[in-house]
Amino acid sequence: MDEDADPEQPTDPLISEALSEAVPEAAPGRLRKRGGRAGNTRRGGPAIRQTLWTDVINTDHPTEPLPPEGVEAIHDGAMRVLEEIGIEFLNAEALEILRDAGCTIDGENVRMGRDFVMEMLGRAPSEFTLTPRNPDRTITIGGRHMVFGNISSPPNCSDIERGRRSGNREDYRNFLKLTQYFNCIHFAGGYPVEPIDIHPSVRHLDCLYDKLTLTDKAAHAYSLGPERVEDVMEMVRIAGGLSQEAFEATPRMYTNINSTSPLKHDWPMLDGAMRLARRGQPTIVTPFTLAGAMAPVTMVGAVTQSIAEALAAIALLQCIRPGVGVGIGTFTSNVDMKTGAPAFGTPDYVRATQITGQMARFYGLPLRSSNACAANTPDNQATWESMMSMWAAVTSGTNMVYHAAGWLEGGLCASFEKFIMDCEVLQQFIAYFRPLTTGPEDIAVDAIREVGPGGHFFGIQHTQDRYETAFYSPFLSDWSNYENWEDRGAVTTVQRANRLCKQILGEYEKPPMDEAIREELADFVARRKQEGGAPTDF
Amino acid sequence: MDEDADPEQPTDPLISEALSEAVPEAAPGRLRKRGGRAGNTRRGGPAIRQTLWTDVINTDHPTEPLPPEGVEAIHDGAMRVLEEIGIEFLNAEALEILRDAGCTIDGENVRMGRDFVMEMLGRAPSEFTLTPRNPDRTITIGGRHMVFGNISSPPNCSDIERGRRSGNREDYRNFLKLTQYFNCIHFAGGYPVEPIDIHPSVRHLDCLYDKLTLTDKAAHAYSLGPERVEDVMEMVRIAGGLSQEAFEATPRMYTNINSTSPLKHDWPMLDGAMRLARRGQPTIVTPFTLAGAMAPVTMVGAVTQSIAEALAAIALLQCIRPGVGVGIGTFTSNVDMKTGAPAFGTPDYVRATQITGQMARFYGLPLRSSNACAANTPDNQATWESMMSMWAAVTSGTNMVYHAAGWLEGGLCASFEKFIMDCEVLQQFIAYFRPLTTGPEDIAVDAIREVGPGGHFFGIQHTQDRYETAFYSPFLSDWSNYENWEDRGAVTTVQRANRLCKQILGEYEKPPMDEAIREELADFVARRKQEGGAPTDF
Repeated sequence: MDEDADPEQPTDPLISEALSEAVPEAAPGRLRKRGGRAGNTRRGGPAIRQTLWTDVINTDHPTEPLPPEGVEAIHDGAMRVLEEIGIEFLNAEALEILRDAGCTIDGENVRMGRDFVMEMLGRAPSEFTLTPRNPDRTITIGGRHMVFGNISSPPNCSDIERGRRSGNREDYRNFLKLTQYFNCIHFAGGYPVEPIDIHPSVRHLDCLYDKLTLTDKAAHAYSLGPERVEDVMEMVRIAGGLSQEAFEATPRMYTNINSTSPLKHDWPMLDGAMRLARRGQPTIVTPFTLAGAMAPVTMVGAVTQSIAEALAAIALLQCIRPGVGVGIGTFTSNVDMKTGAPAFGTPDYVRATQITGQMARFYGLPLRSSNACAANTPDNQATWESMMSMWAAVTSGTNMVYHAAGWLEGGLCASFEKFIMDCEVLQQFIAYFRPLTTGPEDIAVDAIREVGPGGHFFGIQHTQDRYETAFYSPFLSDWSNYENWEDRGAVTTVQRANRLCKQILGEYEKPPMDEAIREELADFVARRKQEGGAPTDF
Repeated sequence: MDEDADPEQPTDPLISEALSEAVPEAAPGRLRKRGGRAGNTRRGGPAIRQTLWTDVINTDHPTEPLPPEGVEAIHDGAMRVLEEIGIEFLNAEALEILRDAGCTIDGENVRMGRDFVMEMLGRAPSEFTLTPRNPDRTITIGGRHMVFGNISSPPNCSDIERGRRSGNREDYRNFLKLTQYFNCIHFAGGYPVEPIDIHPSVRHLDCLYDKLTLTDKAAHAYSLGPERVEDVMEMVRIAGGLSQEAFEATPRMYTNINSTSPLKHDWPMLDGAMRLARRGQPTIVTPFTLAGAMAPVTMVGAVTQSIAEALAAIALLQCIRPGVGVGIGTFTSNVDMKTGAPAFGTPDYVRATQITGQMARFYGLPLRSSNACAANTPDNQATWESMMSMWAAVTSGTNMVYHAAGWLEGGLCASFEKFIMDCEVLQQFIAYFRPLTTGPEDIAVDAIREVGPGGHFFGIQHTQDRYETAFYSPFLSDWSNYENWEDRGAVTTVQRANRLCKQILGEYEKPPMDEAIREELADFVARRKQEGGAPTDF
């Protein structure tokens, strides 16, 4: 080796040799003990050893780009929007409720005073739970809790072998299997891909049947018409083996509604959220405020408008059911001003997310953001945009990360390989939040003394006692040196993700469900299909 | 469009249409005005519009994983290592200086009391400048300043067309051209690839001649023998057109030294750092403490050892030249306990970096970290590991990011495409740190009022006045929709990076240098070559 070589170079051959002498039991598998998961194990070993299901607590102090005066300025701006400009509620029932509550109604325009808004926000819980049919999968939304959900709602999906295609039920079910398999996915959001081979009138019935039988995690209802919302609530109730009273006693599911920015809430979204609220089920309100398009070109202006739109709907829901779970969703980002294309995971997006986090804490509400990117293929751009979005989530204090795994193309495509890669990254964030301790055994002066200058730490008891769980072990990253990586075929990350995805789908196992409940669910679907499902105009 | 479609879907065709009506002057180029750079412009337009050279101020409060007691515990542990165990200084001169300063010397082992260490640290500046031959490229190390340098010291380089190969002078020069071209690269670190076609005895002469003529940014000297260090200092002095006194009056260059962990400082590293210190030039001390190998398996133990090693050398340098610029470098990461392979950009690495940041602030010293990854090819893993490393740098309050562009394989390979991709990401971090304001025009209630419910913001004056500079414009990300991206050949990010790299190298222009100075530099190189350069044993 050339004497000018950098002393920072890794010395893996040396380390490796020392390790094999010192740690003979250092075989693959044993070292990954902190992964492992009951229920997914088969003869021959599982495809991966994954992180256990765990409550993720974001212990970091959130990043606060704005000083308190900045937060006050956005608050005041949002209140002025609500007081002076107003929000359109395209729903007669909502208008009636808000009129009764003392808001100023002019046609569909609703103006509400800040005192009223703040009073309504005072009713909202700062955190709430979602209890799915498997109570072991109960999650907490709010506080310092952080939960991750699968990608939702793209019309297309892709993998590197079969390419990009419209969604169908098989792909839909496969994404649900991944959603169930990975412990780092805490809730089953919207449809991970639209199964367009099922007619829209009955799609929600088949989709929810699949979701409730293939997964046991907290589920979501689209607020796209009363029949769909009511059907989904009924199916969640049946799947949980619950009476109507038990269903309504605590949150079992949730919906997400988007305003039609600027300043408008559409009928079906409001209708769905109100139906859920009446039965004690939570709503996340997520304005889709692209700065420069549907919102001011200034990021703080876009956040101001977004907050006004979100609070308007939240105030309505707190009128209907004081104390019902609600959350602020942020989808504020910028567009490419050349083309109007939305961009995600940009520096401006990160700041908007962090600022929305400041506002959510100001109002004492949970925050939802997304693991979003604009890239058209699961390449480097997809990863850096997603990493920016994930760090935006972490540094903003986001409680609920939508689209945490699988998203491409600004949400138009679900990628199987990206789903696997995102889960690798989600596991890393879970590991990042493991508690740190600084007792004498952690500081390890005695271990340093024992090894002394020029020695190595492989063989000592301090290492032996801890090496199995000391570090995060990835399932997808390849840390071997170049020569070994090349000898094994120079397999890239996305190719490894493709292989693992197939293995995982092969070993997926359905979560248990009482056969009587499954039959009741199937009967409900059959009956509602006979009745025609939800009305459509085609 | 199917009525179940997600309301969060991007509406780019609509936005695009509205935009072309409202913003007729929205042509490519014009919108990227915040990029642009004098000196790299040619007929036909430059390859990219890039971010201007700027002082990057990290305004975020750093992430502090440890409470004050944890910081105290690491401090106490490091002091106990220095007091009770000692550090080996394999350098007689250093031993003599430390003996005179009152340290306890036993052979090569040096024990130093915490009072002495803290007194020496009290002499060190919390920030200092580096002034290269072009004073417009002066950078500040410390405080809230953040600067980025090129990858340093890999023996190999790669691009997707020619594959992986040993470094040579042409590749070395090409990486220097990229280092000079990009405004987001603030300093020219070590050799971006080792040009192994130049004999080691004279390599530093050719390398520094290239570096000082092809770039005008702050340069680095390897501490690998007295002749090399003295030659580099002399060449930096000549390139700056400086007298010996002027050279020594302020930092003009720097070195980085690594301890041989555990607990040892080797002769050439100490020799180089001491030579620089005597002439007022700064040193970054970067222990290479891989937890579980050369340091305790606990990350806080590895940080403790790293701090002890760094402070030992810093104390020595402050003995020699009170007030000379010094910094703590962190290279603490974990190994794969199966193979001993070093891992970078892991969750454990992020925490170690943040904790080292807490310690650096505790001691009032600048912090250096790296944009590191373990991946063998510029794929998704490389990007997520690098993004973890970059966010570690941001959240730790790192002042100096080594290897900020181009690093692969744990530092064994410099990738041309990764260099370009990393610069895209570095620009995004620079944009992330742009100041935010929340005046009435930012909050934009009047703009929201003007547009009203259901309108769009493209055409209004508030948007027109700001759209050119409102958002960060990437040079490498592709935000077009899938169909347009596919029509243009479905070019992946790494392919785009490859194309851009060639364009950039084609339009690179040398920074100006006085011809007399260039000749003096060339004469120096010729003379020193005639004298045999630096001694080698081959």
